[in-house]
Amino acid sequence: MAVIRFNPWKKVYKKPFGAVKENEVAIFMIEVIAEKVVSVQLIIHKDFQKDKTVNMSKTGETEFSCEYFFNHQAGLYFYHFEVQTQVDDEIITEFYGPTEQGGEGQKFSSAETVWDYQVTCYKRAEKAPDWYRNGIFYQIFPDRFANGNPNRIINSPKKNTYIYATEEDEPLYVKGPDGEILRWDFFGGNFKGILQKIPYLKELGVNGIYLNPIFEASSNHRYDTADYFSIDPVLGTQEEFKNLLDTLHENEMHLILDGVFSHVGQNSRYFNVNGTYGENTGAYNDRYSPYYSWFTFNDYPDDYASWWGIKDLPEVNKEDPGFQKFIYGKEDSVLSKWTKMGVDGWRLDVADELPDEFIKGIRGNLENFSEKILLGEVWEDASNKISYNQRREYILGDHLQGVMNYPLRNSVIDLLSEKKSPKIVAMSLMKLYENYPVDIFFNNLNNIGTHDTERILSELGHHLKKMDLAFAMMFIFPGIPCIYYGDEAGLTGGKDPENRKFFPWETINQDIYDDCKKWVTFRKNNPLLKDGEVCFFYGKQLFGILRYSDDDYVALLINPGNYPTTVNGNLTFISDETSMVEEVHRRLSNRTLKENSYLLITSEQKRKSIEKYRSITKK
Amino acid sequence: MAVIRFNPWKKVYKKPFGAVKENEVAIFMIEVIAEKVVSVQLIIHKDFQKDKTVNMSKTGETEFSCEYFFNHQAGLYFYHFEVQTQVDDEIITEFYGPTEQGGEGQKFSSAETVWDYQVTCYKRAEKAPDWYRNGIFYQIFPDRFANGNPNRIINSPKKNTYIYATEEDEPLYVKGPDGEILRWDFFGGNFKGILQKIPYLKELGVNGIYLNPIFEASSNHRYDTADYFSIDPVLGTQEEFKNLLDTLHENEMHLILDGVFSHVGQNSRYFNVNGTYGENTGAYNDRYSPYYSWFTFNDYPDDYASWWGIKDLPEVNKEDPGFQKFIYGKEDSVLSKWTKMGVDGWRLDVADELPDEFIKGIRGNLENFSEKILLGEVWEDASNKISYNQRREYILGDHLQGVMNYPLRNSVIDLLSEKKSPKIVAMSLMKLYENYPVDIFFNNLNNIGTHDTERILSELGHHLKKMDLAFAMMFIFPGIPCIYYGDEAGLTGGKDPENRKFFPWETINQDIYDDCKKWVTFRKNNPLLKDGEVCFFYGKQLFGILRYSDDDYVALLINPGNYPTTVNGNLTFISDETSMVEEVHRRLSNRTLKENSYLLITSEQKRKSIEKYRSITKK
Repeated sequence: MAVIRFNPWKKVYKKPFGAVKENEVAIFMIEVIAEKVVSVQLIIHKDFQKDKTVNMSKTGETEFSCEYFFNHQAGLYFYHFEVQTQVDDEIITEFYGPTEQGGEGQKFSSAETVWDYQVTCYKRAEKAPDWYRNGIFYQIFPDRFANGNPNRIINSPKKNTYIYATEEDEPLYVKGPDGEILRWDFFGGNFKGILQKIPYLKELGVNGIYLNPIFEASSNHRYDTADYFSIDPVLGTQEEFKNLLDTLHENEMHLILDGVFSHVGQNSRYFNVNGTYGENTGAYNDRYSPYYSWFTFNDYPDDYASWWGIKDLPEVNKEDPGFQKFIYGKEDSVLSKWTKMGVDGWRLDVADELPDEFIKGIRGNLENFSEKILLGEVWEDASNKISYNQRREYILGDHLQGVMNYPLRNSVIDLLSEKKSPKIVAMSLMKLYENYPVDIFFNNLNNIGTHDTERILSELGHHLKKMDLAFAMMFIFPGIPCIYYGDEAGLTGGKDPENRKFFPWETINQDIYDDCKKWVTFRKNNPLLKDGEVCFFYGKQLFGILRYSDDDYVALLINPGNYPTTVNGNLTFISDETSMVEEVHRRLSNRTLKENSYLLITSEQKRKSIEKYRSITKK
Repeated sequence: MAVIRFNPWKKVYKKPFGAVKENEVAIFMIEVIAEKVVSVQLIIHKDFQKDKTVNMSKTGETEFSCEYFFNHQAGLYFYHFEVQTQVDDEIITEFYGPTEQGGEGQKFSSAETVWDYQVTCYKRAEKAPDWYRNGIFYQIFPDRFANGNPNRIINSPKKNTYIYATEEDEPLYVKGPDGEILRWDFFGGNFKGILQKIPYLKELGVNGIYLNPIFEASSNHRYDTADYFSIDPVLGTQEEFKNLLDTLHENEMHLILDGVFSHVGQNSRYFNVNGTYGENTGAYNDRYSPYYSWFTFNDYPDDYASWWGIKDLPEVNKEDPGFQKFIYGKEDSVLSKWTKMGVDGWRLDVADELPDEFIKGIRGNLENFSEKILLGEVWEDASNKISYNQRREYILGDHLQGVMNYPLRNSVIDLLSEKKSPKIVAMSLMKLYENYPVDIFFNNLNNIGTHDTERILSELGHHLKKMDLAFAMMFIFPGIPCIYYGDEAGLTGGKDPENRKFFPWETINQDIYDDCKKWVTFRKNNPLLKDGEVCFFYGKQLFGILRYSDDDYVALLINPGNYPTTVNGNLTFISDETSMVEEVHRRLSNRTLKENSYLLITSEQKRKSIEKYRSITKK
């Protein structure tokens, strides 16, 4: 039996690291230590296609190598190895593939059970605009951020809705016996409020805003669009929105909107169940409505396709050419209207529900403008997501430029709650890095919480030191950090609606705010964090992120545990391609980290200490 | 077998009519037509005591009479008659008592089955103050009437409550799965609002206001008192309340408050479940609380007596001397504080839950002031109400001066919805008149709807003509009319919370308003309606109320039906003691009433037409 060794996270085994571009060539090397090697083969297939066999030739004492030309178009490729060795007269065939965590693999007993490594092959490198790559984002749920009117006056309150009596109230849905929403609840945040808080956001260091939906709708979240061409009057007027947009731009800030195109509200202009928009306009009450073909009726009008079976949200058929033109046609479309007005990008809600062609259409529209960004809501590894039995092309080029990075949030929680070991967390992040085209990985909108998750502070048991570590991870990680409004102020709560409290303007937790701002500032002052490569490392009760370039580095070391720990020279760097590793390792060695604390070292600090030493010795 | 005739509603049979005063003598006469009368006896007993037998002597051809001296103290007396006649050698004993409707009675076969007539014997004639007897009242549910702040700003909104988005919203309770209130809902009406609407009320003709509770509480209805000595800050300050009171008085208007003394709120200063009032103050969290003895704990602290088992409303032991002193002690009591400030009277919530002694205590407190009024919430005939196995002394003197007249409302609905015939309705009103001490009957606060009933307009199927008739009945009836806010403006709705919509200031129904104001004005211009005696009459599809004095009358004739009808000289006057009857009858005869219409005639009109005739003939 042979000793076999392969690890795609090290360039000696696979070059280039991670995803490849269409028509790029990758070099694979595998070590096989055996008395007699008969053959070594790379078994590779494109997604849903047949295996191909590539013979690997001996290129060293124990090294076998081959090239692979990724010329079968973008998509996913999967591979493993087959090794034949001879012991005496017997030929032994062994199979080698990854463990669940990825990285260094293991032997499998048969071709049927062997797992595959993934190579993502993309069509086009998705360079995001500079303004975006330099972003410190801030997500605002508009009803819950700030009300710019005196005395909490609400703009155009909707009939038969509730207004929270005070901005300190706990959000609560008003539900009927069957769990249905009887009445929507509003705090009354609005554009004027955001406008007034621009100085606050600038002071914090924010330069990008992701706004949850703002178009006319019934609910407080506005995912039930009623009119794609109108601003919800509770938020303000179109002029106020334009003014907000212009003022943000004057302040070198950018704004992206939430694009909710999978479904509409049942009381929308398009479906119009309750007849708000006139008697014969929407598909529900008029078969001759121009919107009729958008919807799928099993039995007209009451039995219709809806999002997750929620009748309040009739699903739109995204393959309907009329709807496509309406959303992303070059002229007079929803995308064109708002993007022309100055909106800097879009985050596509429930991207899984949008066919690739539809996302591509949206991207095509945005290409008519310059410097726009298109992100998608995908909760898992977006490289190999399957939805509705289709492998999705989100990040292969010409579709999304990045996704909301929920896997990062999961890792942060797994690590800081000690649900998973630093090693496992480091490996899962490394695998994500491996699977994503590198530009996508650096374009992702990172979060440690959104309007769809528990508040990170609650998730971390209201532990302020852990909260500081969570910010640290988000701000050191590749991708664009995005603070969920109020996380920096100490907001707590479980899932929706508790995660949508009003911003606590009067009771901002100054400790948390200071920690958050510290990381914002650190990121701004270290351009390396925008473009620098990344390497994860770990030790016993220790997790690290190293960001580096040819001549610079930043290393964050975290002790997520509730006991102090000392670095005993036993840190493992998942990839070791940088010459910095040795230095970082040496500088961290023997350092002691208190419980729930971090160490942050930079090459800058080292230079300065050397200069200081020199200046002392010169004297 | 004899022919027997008796009817206590006619003075020839019983004098005086109706209730008697302590130590008053009543004369009973019964007609017996038989070949040979052996004996006629009045069988009378005081409530829960043994029968007494009074022999009746022959005072005419067929008349037998006796006197009865009501010298066994105030209370209810019940009587029937026993008549022995002889036919041939046989002595026949017959029993005579009332039918269910009262008035003329019927024969019963045995002493066991015979029903009794009731005589209410009262201790003291309850003359109400003139200002009250001249009243046109208006009931205001304070959260729902008017908000005097600009832009609908709410005074001191309570944390974790909802504010209705618009004043046109439909009220809705926010309930949990077990029907419990999760959060209270407010429109935000306040004292400033009422103050601003004084001109509106004066224009309508209102000169008295009954305010639903105003003391600090958690809910929008404030029946869950939290602090009897504080104004609920949502309504305004104590100064604002005082200012409202003073301004009302300057405008010759009066104000009565809702006294809610049967229970308190669980989060009150006295019970203090959630600790709002400090850690060791209320009975729930401190056995040494000064309020501990107010409550009844089966198992301290969570198992306690509460109103109708609603844990939110811990019941107070009204026999606790501490509580009695707190509520109605001469100095520093709740009653004293607010009455001293100028409050003109009190309506006691759930009087059934307040022991007679407690009510008497309250009345005693009010006697320290002059010109105050004490009313009670009793839903049925208050003269013979039994609650908790006790016959109640509400209206026998030294307790209540009047009650909320719900039986009137029931009669209005029964008549106008044609659920009962005009005859049955007339008889049930007559019985009420008979049972109540006459001053009480004239002191009752009449209503056709309150915060505890369906809106009268909805009850009448939104029929504007019937609505006009309902107003007519309330304004012509003895007692003090009390308009439930918004009834005059066209508010609709079923029971709580639908009957508590916000006053529709922008969409007042002018037709209904005009009708209401017409009746207010008519009442104001006819002092007879305040003190005049009353006689009910009816015909086929016709119901009438005659109000009269020695030289004056007003007669209202109503056709509640949906077809026109003509008076064919067949009207029945339930009591015929006034010389006016003949004239009224004549004047109404042959008049045709359209469906759902009324005729109103006054002696004034007659005089004027006679004068007009004279002036014409003189020319």
